[in-house]
Amino acid sequence: MNNEDFNAMILVQVNNIKYLSNYSPTSFAICIIKEDPIILTSAMDKELANISSSIQVEEFKSYSDLIKLFKKERFKKIAIESSLPVDVYKKIEGKWDLEIKELVETERMVKSSEEISKMYESVAISHNSFKQLNIYEKQEKNVSEWELAYELGYLMRKNRATSEAFETIVASGSNSRFPHARCENKKLETPILMDWGCKFDGYCSDTSRTIVYNEKQEEIFDIVLEAHDKAIDYIKPGVKLCEIDKIARSIINEYGYADNFIHSSGHSLGLDIHEKPNVSKKDETILEKNMVITIEPGIYLEDEFGVRIEDMILVENKAKIMGNLPYKIS
Amino acid sequence: MNNEDFNAMILVQVNNIKYLSNYSPTSFAICIIKEDPIILTSAMDKELANISSSIQVEEFKSYSDLIKLFKKERFKKIAIESSLPVDVYKKIEGKWDLEIKELVETERMVKSSEEISKMYESVAISHNSFKQLNIYEKQEKNVSEWELAYELGYLMRKNRATSEAFETIVASGSNSRFPHARCENKKLETPILMDWGCKFDGYCSDTSRTIVYNEKQEEIFDIVLEAHDKAIDYIKPGVKLCEIDKIARSIINEYGYADNFIHSSGHSLGLDIHEKPNVSKKDETILEKNMVITIEPGIYLEDEFGVRIEDMILVENKAKIMGNLPYKIS
Repeated sequence: MNNEDFNAMILVQVNNIKYLSNYSPTSFAICIIKEDPIILTSAMDKELANISSSIQVEEFKSYSDLIKLFKKERFKKIAIESSLPVDVYKKIEGKWDLEIKELVETERMVKSSEEISKMYESVAISHNSFKQLNIYEKQEKNVSEWELAYELGYLMRKNRATSEAFETIVASGSNSRFPHARCENKKLETPILMDWGCKFDGYCSDTSRTIVYNEKQEEIFDIVLEAHDKAIDYIKPGVKLCEIDKIARSIINEYGYADNFIHSSGHSLGLDIHEKPNVSKKDETILEKNMVITIEPGIYLEDEFGVRIEDMILVENKAKIMGNLPYKIS
Repeated sequence: MNNEDFNAMILVQVNNIKYLSNYSPTSFAICIIKEDPIILTSAMDKELANISSSIQVEEFKSYSDLIKLFKKERFKKIAIESSLPVDVYKKIEGKWDLEIKELVETERMVKSSEEISKMYESVAISHNSFKQLNIYEKQEKNVSEWELAYELGYLMRKNRATSEAFETIVASGSNSRFPHARCENKKLETPILMDWGCKFDGYCSDTSRTIVYNEKQEEIFDIVLEAHDKAIDYIKPGVKLCEIDKIARSIINEYGYADNFIHSSGHSLGLDIHEKPNVSKKDETILEKNMVITIEPGIYLEDEFGVRIEDMILVENKAKIMGNLPYKIS
């Protein structure tokens, strides 16, 4: 921060605050990083903030008090987050420059060894819970999509997760053609596409598997797995993320399904389920050691079904797949 | 919108888009309200948007395309949401005025009869599920806080909810001293404070009950219930929300617990669990017929326990409590 003459940084994004202070706000809070950092929070959250963090905590009273503080400290240049709501931005305008600068987001891109071990635990919980789910047995019992998703959530919590990392996707039959499908209240059809993960000590996991049942589904499955494998093989420090996306996309293009791969090839994750950078056409970020990304190519056939296969990858000298969940579920 | 010379309104908040278009985005989308409205969304979400909405749908390609559109349409004044992320705000700046104007949020304050009936259904599901939970039986079986919360989530879904409206709070023993407590992996202690709700067809419900077990807890319970009842009695069209907050606060002050009521007395809800206006000290909004608000006073004793009682209120000629769940749970 010092290098660029910023006097302070204003954080309101929950996980940026948690990353720097260990306090995870349950309602609106502002963390001001300056020579003597301070957390401003609701009366309701004060005790939690004090217990969680060593940073000084005060009650957030009003924006005019905040402006007074900025004046008193003679701030000239303040870093703000890209996600700052525009009404807050307008309320804190003054004689200082407010400049979007993703300082914390950039720091969060490369994980510490402590973060990596929490993410390994998060993956392990989500994979073990998936195995305990016994999908084929559930299918015989005629459970519905949401029941299967809910049972998985129960198992993940039982195995020490605090919650799902995002709403579990169980998309079967034609529902699987939506990459972000919402669980329906219907008995499981085929194929079954599942995308799930949990949070362990704040850190997310994210995996997808598709269980296929006939030749056409297997044909698509094999193409997606090839794209998945080749993209992962290409991963190493120094490579641009858009190049990895290109590899996955080129395999799927070769088989004539270019128009059916309708999302990016992956994303970073950590405290948030989607972090920067992305494994997308446009993202020119260069991979570094200890980044954690997903690789998740998919093919979605209109009015038919979809297949997606997703793993979490830790970038070491080459890609290291986190966990070892089989692709063919037995 | 026409009255104030706005040429267009830009929406990115998911439930503002859903409110006007019936499409509930699963990733970033922009809805532009103009003479011929348009939804710009990801390739992934195009089919869902087309199925859900009668508004024209196109793929969102880039902000420079968006700027071209603004120029082509010769926009001079564009309404934006207060929650618009500042990086999007910066990307769409141009020769036009961008003005924060909560047009949709204001429209959403007063509910239609269709919205009210969905909210009644949402309350009914959450209350019936709570009754089916048999807390005392669960307590005898030594279930943990998160297990009780999870079981309630299962019942709400079984009773046709799509999901929880927010993370269910089961806060027992000293954990109940946090208004926004997170469920712990511990067996239920006493008292048991629960705050829960579900979504039915997009609409939220929100209720709190506290089960008390001894004289001290009952004493606090009675004060909170008195504050709850008197605040509700005061509700009618024409009254300012801050006056209702004042009533609840004055009762609690009378008994000497002013410093232990550390949040506002309630909030509006609908598609979102927290909508505008708030039942708080500062909110001068005047109540109108068909607003739906919560009344939820609470007293939180440091290092001891907390009690909160919350109901949803439909504003008719006077307050109408939605549902009829008892305050003393038997």
